[in-house]
Amino acid sequence: MEKVRILLAGLGRMGQSHAINLVNKIPQAEVIAVCSIVQDEIDWAKNVLGIKSLYKNFDQMVDEKKGEADALYLVTSTDQHARGIIKGLENGLHVFCEKPLGIDIKECLEVEQVSKKFPELNVTLGFVRRFDPSYKYAKELIDQGKIGKPFLVKSQTTDDDTTAPFQLKFAKTGGGAFLDMNIHDVDLARWFLGSEMEQATSYGGCYKHEGFGDFGDVDNAAALTRFDNGSMAFFLASRTAPHGHDTHTQILGTNGILRIGHNPRNNHVEILDPTGVRNECVKTFYERFEEAFLLEAIDFVDRIKDGKAPIVGIQDALMAQKGAIALTKSLKERKTVYVKDIKE
Amino acid sequence: MEKVRILLAGLGRMGQSHAINLVNKIPQAEVIAVCSIVQDEIDWAKNVLGIKSLYKNFDQMVDEKKGEADALYLVTSTDQHARGIIKGLENGLHVFCEKPLGIDIKECLEVEQVSKKFPELNVTLGFVRRFDPSYKYAKELIDQGKIGKPFLVKSQTTDDDTTAPFQLKFAKTGGGAFLDMNIHDVDLARWFLGSEMEQATSYGGCYKHEGFGDFGDVDNAAALTRFDNGSMAFFLASRTAPHGHDTHTQILGTNGILRIGHNPRNNHVEILDPTGVRNECVKTFYERFEEAFLLEAIDFVDRIKDGKAPIVGIQDALMAQKGAIALTKSLKERKTVYVKDIKE
Amino acid sequence: MEKVRILLAGLGRMGQSHAINLVNKIPQAEVIAVCSIVQDEIDWAKNVLGIKSLYKNFDQMVDEKKGEADALYLVTSTDQHARGIIKGLENGLHVFCEKPLGIDIKECLEVEQVSKKFPELNVTLGFVRRFDPSYKYAKELIDQGKIGKPFLVKSQTTDDDTTAPFQLKFAKTGGGAFLDMNIHDVDLARWFLGSEMEQATSYGGCYKHEGFGDFGDVDNAAALTRFDNGSMAFFLASRTAPHGHDTHTQILGTNGILRIGHNPRNNHVEILDPTGVRNECVKTFYERFEEAFLLEAIDFVDRIKDGKAPIVGIQDALMAQKGAIALTKSLKERKTVYVKDIKE
Amino acid sequence: MEKVRILLAGLGRMGQSHAINLVNKIPQAEVIAVCSIVQDEIDWAKNVLGIKSLYKNFDQMVDEKKGEADALYLVTSTDQHARGIIKGLENGLHVFCEKPLGIDIKECLEVEQVSKKFPELNVTLGFVRRFDPSYKYAKELIDQGKIGKPFLVKSQTTDDDTTAPFQLKFAKTGGGAFLDMNIHDVDLARWFLGSEMEQATSYGGCYKHEGFGDFGDVDNAAALTRFDNGSMAFFLASRTAPHGHDTHTQILGTNGILRIGHNPRNNHVEILDPTGVRNECVKTFYERFEEAFLLEAIDFVDRIKDGKAPIVGIQDALMAQKGAIALTKSLKERKTVYVKDIKE
Repeated sequence: MEKVRILLAGLGRMGQSHAINLVNKIPQAEVIAVCSIVQDEIDWAKNVLGIKSLYKNFDQMVDEKKGEADALYLVTSTDQHARGIIKGLENGLHVFCEKPLGIDIKECLEVEQVSKKFPELNVTLGFVRRFDPSYKYAKELIDQGKIGKPFLVKSQTTDDDTTAPFQLKFAKTGGGAFLDMNIHDVDLARWFLGSEMEQATSYGGCYKHEGFGDFGDVDNAAALTRFDNGSMAFFLASRTAPHGHDTHTQILGTNGILRIGHNPRNNHVEILDPTGVRNECVKTFYERFEEAFLLEAIDFVDRIKDGKAPIVGIQDALMAQKGAIALTKSLKERKTVYVKDIKE
Repeated sequence: MEKVRILLAGLGRMGQSHAINLVNKIPQAEVIAVCSIVQDEIDWAKNVLGIKSLYKNFDQMVDEKKGEADALYLVTSTDQHARGIIKGLENGLHVFCEKPLGIDIKECLEVEQVSKKFPELNVTLGFVRRFDPSYKYAKELIDQGKIGKPFLVKSQTTDDDTTAPFQLKFAKTGGGAFLDMNIHDVDLARWFLGSEMEQATSYGGCYKHEGFGDFGDVDNAAALTRFDNGSMAFFLASRTAPHGHDTHTQILGTNGILRIGHNPRNNHVEILDPTGVRNECVKTFYERFEEAFLLEAIDFVDRIKDGKAPIVGIQDALMAQKGAIALTKSLKERKTVYVKDIKE
Repeated sequence: MEKVRILLAGLGRMGQSHAINLVNKIPQAEVIAVCSIVQDEIDWAKNVLGIKSLYKNFDQMVDEKKGEADALYLVTSTDQHARGIIKGLENGLHVFCEKPLGIDIKECLEVEQVSKKFPELNVTLGFVRRFDPSYKYAKELIDQGKIGKPFLVKSQTTDDDTTAPFQLKFAKTGGGAFLDMNIHDVDLARWFLGSEMEQATSYGGCYKHEGFGDFGDVDNAAALTRFDNGSMAFFLASRTAPHGHDTHTQILGTNGILRIGHNPRNNHVEILDPTGVRNECVKTFYERFEEAFLLEAIDFVDRIKDGKAPIVGIQDALMAQKGAIALTKSLKERKTVYVKDIKE
Repeated sequence: MEKVRILLAGLGRMGQSHAINLVNKIPQAEVIAVCSIVQDEIDWAKNVLGIKSLYKNFDQMVDEKKGEADALYLVTSTDQHARGIIKGLENGLHVFCEKPLGIDIKECLEVEQVSKKFPELNVTLGFVRRFDPSYKYAKELIDQGKIGKPFLVKSQTTDDDTTAPFQLKFAKTGGGAFLDMNIHDVDLARWFLGSEMEQATSYGGCYKHEGFGDFGDVDNAAALTRFDNGSMAFFLASRTAPHGHDTHTQILGTNGILRIGHNPRNNHVEILDPTGVRNECVKTFYERFEEAFLLEAIDFVDRIKDGKAPIVGIQDALMAQKGAIALTKSLKERKTVYVKDIKE
């Protein structure tokens, strides 16, 4: 059986993780070329992964290699997502792109339009939590009716406080706490509730790290939202979690409640000492979702081989984007925002 | 040392619990008379507790017994709270009253006015969670600066689903889910955040038990609020908790997070069987807060003996009431409500 | 209904706790006299509890007050237990005595003989864990067949390491780690397994506090035992628990497993900070079993009033004593010991 | 860099898992030939893994392929372990062999003797728990002195009760509960305590599944052991765990305690329903140790490439074997057994 041949763009921290998975852990995948604007990263791909076809220019890579490739893997900066997807599609490539779909709604809608012209090509966005075994299991239990009708999702993404200086570096170019962090939670709420967000009210502030304020951002933000079937979702984005990276989600249904990851244990060890009984916590989202990133890549490759549509496509990405933008807009404008009004 | 002599009004389920505490478990207290409009309850007080002075009429009890009494204990229906407190104060009695202070703001403000005329008399409201050892301990840790500056409280009160038919009976005369249940959480948020609620946005619905809708009430409601120092609180009231009575609270601070009661264990037993590893849960708020109810009564009695002001007074009750009314109003009017606009 | 009139002997730490329960928390009990060889303790009983009849001599108290009393409460040092019980019985008093029954088997057997002459009098030993709601609940589940046939009990009593200097003071007159601590666990294993201990093999040592070795004692000891129905029990006594007083028990049955108290939480608070997610622990057995001590006293009083036999009588105390002595003997003699050989 | 070329023998359930890891997940490894006596398994290796060199006869494979191979992977039945290792060594191959080293001590000692002749060849036994991240982390904490001096290990291996019929099939040829299951725990106790087992006392029985008795085996067995530095270990082997595969270990040190895996969660999901708050459990050891099996194989390959000695060698395997045999002997002979007397 033929391997899925991949062009990978972006070799930063996440790009390298994706590259390692594709090269070393997925026999059905073959990375035939990579590109990065950073020479060290290109050297790394050459020396550590043994990749021979190396580019500094994204367009050049696609133009020269499209004939040998099946798919494009985009792990570039967010501002390059939309045009990267379009470039891939227009050159006949399936596309995997890290979330989010783009910066503003306008370019997201453009991607949506272009993608409609290539229905035979998969475009999937990196909503990695959908591939985490625990989140998948929760979804299965819900689909089996085990908790009755879900009516409230509470979901948070909180980064370890010690990583705040690192997050601050990205604050200038990022989309703010809600877009950077809670877009996953918005996607999950849509998935679990089977409904789209209708309106959002948000609050937040720089409670600890005032530096985020310099970029119009906050270190903590919370939102309450109503979905169009009348169900609700609560979101929290925090950059000050004292104990580690704590991403967790709760789904309340009429007959049962599911909690996913309510203690972000770093392993199976408990420590009993004069401070009490405790477990240490994972410090980064990658530690928490390492397995899911691999499963996500496997799923992408398998679906191309099997000719199946992706689990999370453009439409999902677009709605999650609109939701996250509504959260952000409510925070800034200090009023309730309707998702239907998010148009550009 | 003299005992604190008490008149107790109301002998329903909660009234009986309070009476048992005062009669059997607090040597410094003496219940000298009780009143109830239900003959069976009066018989119970006579036969089980051995109380000799029994009344069917509240005013008559106060008028005849005020000379022998130090304090009044009000466990009557909510619509009798305000006038009961006023009656007690005007007859020179310290007053303990179950929450809430009243039905509407107008009568609450009236109580506030009257109470100012009797600064030497204690009026305390039954915000029992403040007396729970775990909530007290959390407050101590916060006051010691152990979690830095608190900026977000998430607090919920959820009744066991099997008690919904019971709750439904009270729905007609109750104040709705937020006022009946979350008034405790509003008080706790004020206590932990050291700030007053400024604005609230709520959503909710009858997701399972449509009967609540007949009284303009819901079976689940959630709210996000902003406090006047910029901090936030999230509240959840639910009448459909599948596992038991689950009251819990989380306080996020800039340097630490506290979780209180995040698994409502009914005891210290864990059961390992084919369903997994599990613990059973408490089914009612009384099971959860039994110790706190006793400590609350002891505190009331001790403060009268020691001439000390109560921990939770009229002003606290008034602000919690305003907050809960704002939550309710936002739910009904489908818009953000400002607490400063809650005037009647 | 008449109150149960009690003579209480011994006003040390535990004696005071028992006295407070009987005086302040059990309306059906009345402490009519106390004795202690320590003047301060007598003063405490007089001033704090308001007891009027005060003795320094145990025999004198019993002789003078037996006519007015129904029962004797013994919280004296262990070497006074056996003769105290006999004195009480021979003067027509029901007896509650803290565990253990005595120091050596000989005096325990003597108590057993005397008690047979007074079948109408209750003698109950302070196996307080049987009154703990969690232990009771576990026993109920077992009796209902919920875990099938129990075949292995793992039970430990471990004191907080910081209390080791305090424990060391008692080491000279105590019976060693197994007798002082695991006698409770032996009793529980008998109760849960419905069988008597047949043989025991123990190991142990002074792993941290060598001072215990000066008295032929150890700071940690473990034992594996076989019961006469073929079931098993494992016991651990530790004086070096780093996190607090950790008494817990596990019962393995053919269809289910019960764990009681596997995390000795001090309250419902969880702390999330840079050390991870943790709960603090109770530091003393009294904190853990405070409620059980009260329930135990209530049960003692109620059974006298109702003319019912005690839950834990002489025979239970004798068998637990034999078991604990077998554990100790195996540790010292470095060989397996048969309980049937424990005769003196 | 050259790949480590591997001959793999045995393609049963475990053999297939090992084969998948080596072929698909470890780029530095290459399986150049496999053998199995089962045609279906050979077909599976050919069709699913694409292996071209396929054998039914182990000796033939080694004889024909030794020139192209670096290492031998033995996942055969236990009775073939010793001779397989010897065959590999004598043909110049590094050897990985699933535990245990053999059936009786005699053949284990023979392997030890042969291995001494080939000091340049690695022989490692599959003590997979040493590669589990949680067990490794615990060992690191201990080596850093975080819990002081370890003095007691409690360690259990318990299979899900529903797998008992499956286990029963292997009972005839297996070494009994202690050898089949607790040999891992014995190895861990040696590792954590830094000492060798000196004596053992065991009890056990067929409490639920009498069929094990037909082979002189039991369904549950417990042992208490003394190690030669005076420390202790408790072991439990159970084939009747009601909730799942529950392998866990506790290490008590003079300053801290570590618990590894005390709740065998199957994922990060908690379920709140009328049974309480629960998590489901892993059902098999493979689910629990899937990651460790991969890390173990990676370590084996890496050490060959790097010319490093294995973590767990013949000597470890021999001492664990002696310990497990001592446990078994004590159970059968109903007396304490000294490890120094285990000679054949």
